[in-house]
Amino acid sequence: MTDIFWPGDHRAGDLVSASSFLQSMVAVERAWLAAMVTAGVAPPEADDDLADLVGADDVDRIAVDAEGGGNPAIPTVALLRSRLADRHAEAARWLHRGLTSQDVVDTALVLCLRAAVVAVEHEIREQVTVLADLADRHVDTVMVGRTLTQHAVPLTFGVKVSGWLDGVLDAATLLSAARERLPVQIGGAVGINSAATELLAVTGARTGARTGVADVVADVADRLGLVARRSWHTTRSPLTSLADALVGYSDVLGHVAADVATLSRPEIGEVAEGQVSGRGGSSTMPNKNNPVLAVLIRRAALAAPHLGATVHIAAATAVDERPDGAWHVEWDTHRTLARRSVVAASQATELLGGLQIDVDRMSETLTGALPGVLAERSAMRTLTNSPDVEADPSHYLGAASTIVGDVVSRARTYLEEHE
Amino acid sequence: MTDIFWPGDHRAGDLVSASSFLQSMVAVERAWLAAMVTAGVAPPEADDDLADLVGADDVDRIAVDAEGGGNPAIPTVALLRSRLADRHAEAARWLHRGLTSQDVVDTALVLCLRAAVVAVEHEIREQVTVLADLADRHVDTVMVGRTLTQHAVPLTFGVKVSGWLDGVLDAATLLSAARERLPVQIGGAVGINSAATELLAVTGARTGARTGVADVVADVADRLGLVARRSWHTTRSPLTSLADALVGYSDVLGHVAADVATLSRPEIGEVAEGQVSGRGGSSTMPNKNNPVLAVLIRRAALAAPHLGATVHIAAATAVDERPDGAWHVEWDTHRTLARRSVVAASQATELLGGLQIDVDRMSETLTGALPGVLAERSAMRTLTNSPDVEADPSHYLGAASTIVGDVVSRARTYLEEHE
Amino acid sequence: MTDIFWPGDHRAGDLVSASSFLQSMVAVERAWLAAMVTAGVAPPEADDDLADLVGADDVDRIAVDAEGGGNPAIPTVALLRSRLADRHAEAARWLHRGLTSQDVVDTALVLCLRAAVVAVEHEIREQVTVLADLADRHVDTVMVGRTLTQHAVPLTFGVKVSGWLDGVLDAATLLSAARERLPVQIGGAVGINSAATELLAVTGARTGARTGVADVVADVADRLGLVARRSWHTTRSPLTSLADALVGYSDVLGHVAADVATLSRPEIGEVAEGQVSGRGGSSTMPNKNNPVLAVLIRRAALAAPHLGATVHIAAATAVDERPDGAWHVEWDTHRTLARRSVVAASQATELLGGLQIDVDRMSETLTGALPGVLAERSAMRTLTNSPDVEADPSHYLGAASTIVGDVVSRARTYLEEHE
Amino acid sequence: MTDIFWPGDHRAGDLVSASSFLQSMVAVERAWLAAMVTAGVAPPEADDDLADLVGADDVDRIAVDAEGGGNPAIPTVALLRSRLADRHAEAARWLHRGLTSQDVVDTALVLCLRAAVVAVEHEIREQVTVLADLADRHVDTVMVGRTLTQHAVPLTFGVKVSGWLDGVLDAATLLSAARERLPVQIGGAVGINSAATELLAVTGARTGARTGVADVVADVADRLGLVARRSWHTTRSPLTSLADALVGYSDVLGHVAADVATLSRPEIGEVAEGQVSGRGGSSTMPNKNNPVLAVLIRRAALAAPHLGATVHIAAATAVDERPDGAWHVEWDTHRTLARRSVVAASQATELLGGLQIDVDRMSETLTGALPGVLAERSAMRTLTNSPDVEADPSHYLGAASTIVGDVVSRARTYLEEHE
Repeated sequence: MTDIFWPGDHRAGDLVSASSFLQSMVAVERAWLAAMVTAGVAPPEADDDLADLVGADDVDRIAVDAEGGGNPAIPTVALLRSRLADRHAEAARWLHRGLTSQDVVDTALVLCLRAAVVAVEHEIREQVTVLADLADRHVDTVMVGRTLTQHAVPLTFGVKVSGWLDGVLDAATLLSAARERLPVQIGGAVGINSAATELLAVTGARTGARTGVADVVADVADRLGLVARRSWHTTRSPLTSLADALVGYSDVLGHVAADVATLSRPEIGEVAEGQVSGRGGSSTMPNKNNPVLAVLIRRAALAAPHLGATVHIAAATAVDERPDGAWHVEWDTHRTLARRSVVAASQATELLGGLQIDVDRMSETLTGALPGVLAERSAMRTLTNSPDVEADPSHYLGAASTIVGDVVSRARTYLEEHE
Repeated sequence: MTDIFWPGDHRAGDLVSASSFLQSMVAVERAWLAAMVTAGVAPPEADDDLADLVGADDVDRIAVDAEGGGNPAIPTVALLRSRLADRHAEAARWLHRGLTSQDVVDTALVLCLRAAVVAVEHEIREQVTVLADLADRHVDTVMVGRTLTQHAVPLTFGVKVSGWLDGVLDAATLLSAARERLPVQIGGAVGINSAATELLAVTGARTGARTGVADVVADVADRLGLVARRSWHTTRSPLTSLADALVGYSDVLGHVAADVATLSRPEIGEVAEGQVSGRGGSSTMPNKNNPVLAVLIRRAALAAPHLGATVHIAAATAVDERPDGAWHVEWDTHRTLARRSVVAASQATELLGGLQIDVDRMSETLTGALPGVLAERSAMRTLTNSPDVEADPSHYLGAASTIVGDVVSRARTYLEEHE
Repeated sequence: MTDIFWPGDHRAGDLVSASSFLQSMVAVERAWLAAMVTAGVAPPEADDDLADLVGADDVDRIAVDAEGGGNPAIPTVALLRSRLADRHAEAARWLHRGLTSQDVVDTALVLCLRAAVVAVEHEIREQVTVLADLADRHVDTVMVGRTLTQHAVPLTFGVKVSGWLDGVLDAATLLSAARERLPVQIGGAVGINSAATELLAVTGARTGARTGVADVVADVADRLGLVARRSWHTTRSPLTSLADALVGYSDVLGHVAADVATLSRPEIGEVAEGQVSGRGGSSTMPNKNNPVLAVLIRRAALAAPHLGATVHIAAATAVDERPDGAWHVEWDTHRTLARRSVVAASQATELLGGLQIDVDRMSETLTGALPGVLAERSAMRTLTNSPDVEADPSHYLGAASTIVGDVVSRARTYLEEHE
Repeated sequence: MTDIFWPGDHRAGDLVSASSFLQSMVAVERAWLAAMVTAGVAPPEADDDLADLVGADDVDRIAVDAEGGGNPAIPTVALLRSRLADRHAEAARWLHRGLTSQDVVDTALVLCLRAAVVAVEHEIREQVTVLADLADRHVDTVMVGRTLTQHAVPLTFGVKVSGWLDGVLDAATLLSAARERLPVQIGGAVGINSAATELLAVTGARTGARTGVADVVADVADRLGLVARRSWHTTRSPLTSLADALVGYSDVLGHVAADVATLSRPEIGEVAEGQVSGRGGSSTMPNKNNPVLAVLIRRAALAAPHLGATVHIAAATAVDERPDGAWHVEWDTHRTLARRSVVAASQATELLGGLQIDVDRMSETLTGALPGVLAERSAMRTLTNSPDVEADPSHYLGAASTIVGDVVSRARTYLEEHE
């Protein structure tokens, strides 16, 4: 299933899809049930892996029923429990005990988003490799620099690429940090795990076990590979900072796409998207070769900031122990931002990997822009009372080379640390 | 198919769905083909209603293929043409001739959005009826007015409802106006219908017909029930003003939902959502009766402004004869805004229709707020050297009644004009 | 006083400035006082024009004191009353009686915004004149059309300009309509004019006068040149629809600026901003001639949608009879949007008035793009079995001319209706 | 100078004001000049501290002149140079050589924003102290928990406060990290420091000095207390991540304000803002005591996400070596976000410091909500076949106490690390 309104959506596959969200909710219930068994609260025979109880066929029914209580955890639990009852009564009896809907929805959302971010980080590694090579290869490829759309001073294509790379590395750093902070959500009805505390107290009184809620939360976090932290039902920073990081990455891709789209204008013609059969055509103009990947990436970058604003408005209007709408607006917003990020990342990898560089055209444009683009240099010569020298853009190679080298080095370090 | 991330989405049914979008694209091609036959450009035997050529099963394939050229019209035309070739070669030959992808996508989007707006307007008529009755019924139901969360001065519940109604009527007026302006998009490759002009010129040279492009556009607009206007490939006001109107309506619903959620807090308890089996429950707390419809409506209102911002950013970054990404970001954004508007409208109709009013609680709260809430009145009495009279909130009924009457009258007029 | 963070801000002069806002609040109090005298509530000797009581020197003090009650009306009324007490005790006694802070702030804001919109409409008339002339003059100036950054099919510069003009006219229509709807805000503490009703009732009992609140509101509206309507303390459509119209206008200017910035790239060079001493220079590069007006207009267009989103979020979170923050966020947002709109409008008038068109460059680029850009035409010839003719962009002039004529005619009508 | 449209603005004093921005630009020029002298490029006699050359009186002129080149650095440099010429010709000659406007504007903006963030962090330390004490003090103050506006399960006020505290600590961590990353911007015309490289090369040729651009950048960074990094003219992550952090902090304050505003509704009455003379009054209703600080903080939280979206759109549309508008929109946006953050932070410190807690009212509400709010507990008892025990909210104290203890401990660590 892909989205006809968002060409390229199929690149995100099943990430943060309806069925993967449902499976993630089941995984949360499963981890909790197992942890309650481990804690001695639920009996060993309550253990069940739940995995095959619901599937893609149930998504529509759950989605429709989700309106009744306002979230999809309620019908999911009901369906799980009813199906479990037949094959495993004790598991059905203990399912979800101690959790609240928000625990299930939030943690499942976190699991889905993490998978999407991991996919993005995979693309980022590819991009870092490609960009570092591209910067290296074009460290001496002089071209005209442009500011406010006008010719300014020469630089090299390697420097331009290293700027893209620097942006990708900045974004990657923030994204990995946000992903590594992703927590499990276990708070119970009002965030203090009141029900779980009750259950553990009864168990403790009977068996002498001294397992506390924090132990159970840590166990669940461990099972799901997430960070244990105090419940964050109304403190949404784990999710807003992840969204910020995705928006920040989207910004960088938008910048790259804007540069590619601009430089591939026929009047400039310094770069072009790689030619791929079936890509970049028109329904009526056989002469067209459109920079379609850049166009579609740019599209994502124009929308992402508003998705970020939505989750911040949600965080800013949180109230009570669970908000009346501010929470509910988050799910689809995060889904959309995450899937679009994966799509744009994948498109960017392909774009960068296939980018055609027209070194001669760069050189011609620069030559045509002489001597204006060396006016700054002449001014410096005058300032230092140096005899003015012949116009020679190669003068700029040293400074450019150092910059490229520094960023490429940063890239190599990143790649070593994120194999 | 509904959306597990947006509970209630099923209320929008097939409006602005992938398959209705595909069918709308086909309808545009069909109208164009028919108009070209009428104009004598295409031969009579090129006429074909196209309707059964593609269906829901084709959506995924078209969605995936849409990435190649960046929009779904290209693979749709290709698929239509290949299937048509077998049964109707002449129609296949003339299909889409003179159009550009943006014509097809924009006009199809307009058709889909119009259907959604019509559904919203249907809900609005229901709401206007319910609200006018509610305002009338509670024209004398005194309650405390609240400003900045604190008790202020008495008003009546009828007045409060009439404020909601006034907002709905404002929004409805803007929405209908925007819907009535919705135009067909027929511009060809760069907005001047160059190909169609060529075809008409050849036809004219052969047959002496003097049909101009404007005639053909008018014919297509007529077939689709849209307004004929100059192409608007990079002038996006028809769509931004529709989005603004939907956001404005969403604002009103957000306001109503915020009032309902606030007044149904147990400590206030002046209103409650109607009790419906399976609605408002919790996964763990049997005591809960949550105002779920208000919560879900409020959710939509928190997100809509950012969807509006996205289409404005798209309009503001339009460039050339077709923009490089700014156009592409619109489709999903409009889809999301329109579907959510339908969902929220439907939920609001249900919410208002079932709203429970606790007149006694309103009265009790007001009595408890005496004499503070009459302090303003005492001040006025002092100002006019009038003897202070016994505290009596019924004093406010006259002013309230006039206000209610005016708004209800506005509502009746609206209903007469929008049967 | 101008804004160093927003170059060009001085073009907005005193529109929606702190001091004009203060004077507008005074004007509202003045109109209300006069209306209360007319209604016989306040004695004739209570009349005072208030105009010289506060001035620019008071702005800072009022701004600081505004925090206490959360809005600037409270300290303004206090200051007016204390100063009035000395010279006109009866006026001081009746000042503001019957109003609430929100009445004063909202109506004053409306007055300020209206003045800004009037200034924008003045610029729009200039732009419509300039654009209509430009479109006429270049009705036959062929150039290459561009879609997704690539050469597509020829059009004329007149058509491109007529597209800008069409957008300006769309925006102007919505803006004028929103400006004409601008209402006075008179609702008293909770929107039902409870205090004014009390005062009128006492007056009526004493004098037999039958003036109702609606009459007084109508009188105030008349004095201020605004529309009388039911109070809209929590129904913010009058202001959101004005903001939408300003954002819509900003979109159009953004589109024009993007086209100008793109076409003035040295590699394209088809247009350039007019050369003005001190404009477009660089701090270090003597060779630069930057399209500064386009740059600054584009800046405004990138920000406006988010200001629109802010006022919609405010409208959507309105609650009770006066919201707890949602109202307060509006003032600065509307101020910023309105001032920036005036600045961008003024810059756009200057930009369009001075625009340099390089007809030869347009022709050269088009010639260089042959035969690719005529591929569509060849396809049409093949389709119609017409002998392929010599490549000749002038073929497109007829269709272009009709389009330009229609839009210019629309412009002439607009100008006649908005002298 | 404060802002009548944003009550409380005076709390931000001169932070990110026009004059502090001007002084910051001068500080950047000063640091660069000194570094060039140190590097041996400029002669020792070129050193000048520049500090008294321009002042508040120059702001308006510079602001007006900033339009010509599109940014305020150009007229600032011109003014500095002309005034310097009289007293110090050599300094005038060397002023700004090697820099570009964007270097000056960006670095000055960074300096201003850092000062604002430092002020926010000062408020945060106060808030952390107050919140930790408040959480400790109310660790056993039971109250009803509320979800989706309805009574849910008991918790303690200490837990609620610890949730606010947890949010503040999350935000503080991200904010400090972003502040510590703030870099100097030194890139020259196109980001490769071409002019400075030229100057250093000439110097090296003459004197044998081997100072590189990186050394000079490091020196400038050191002088200004900023991080040295590769120029980031079109890689805006340093500023977007700072904005994200401020928006994140604003979210937390919005959450606190929403809770305070809700809990201070008279029907709930569990908290109230401290009574301060002149605070919370109404222009017409003597009975009012409005939670004004909460209202004004909430206002800021509703707007901040859109300012964040604006700087992300700017980053996402960056192009070339300096963008055509995307850069220019940032300055005012960051100014507004930073000043509002300082204002809201200061208001929040005051709000929290003066917060009145009505422990009895909390207890009464909870008692009134029995036994419903213990339904969850009963369900757990049934589940575990435990005899149902008497309803006793104190049961929840243990779990609550652990949570509070953990957060308070986190607060103590934060305070130690951020003295």
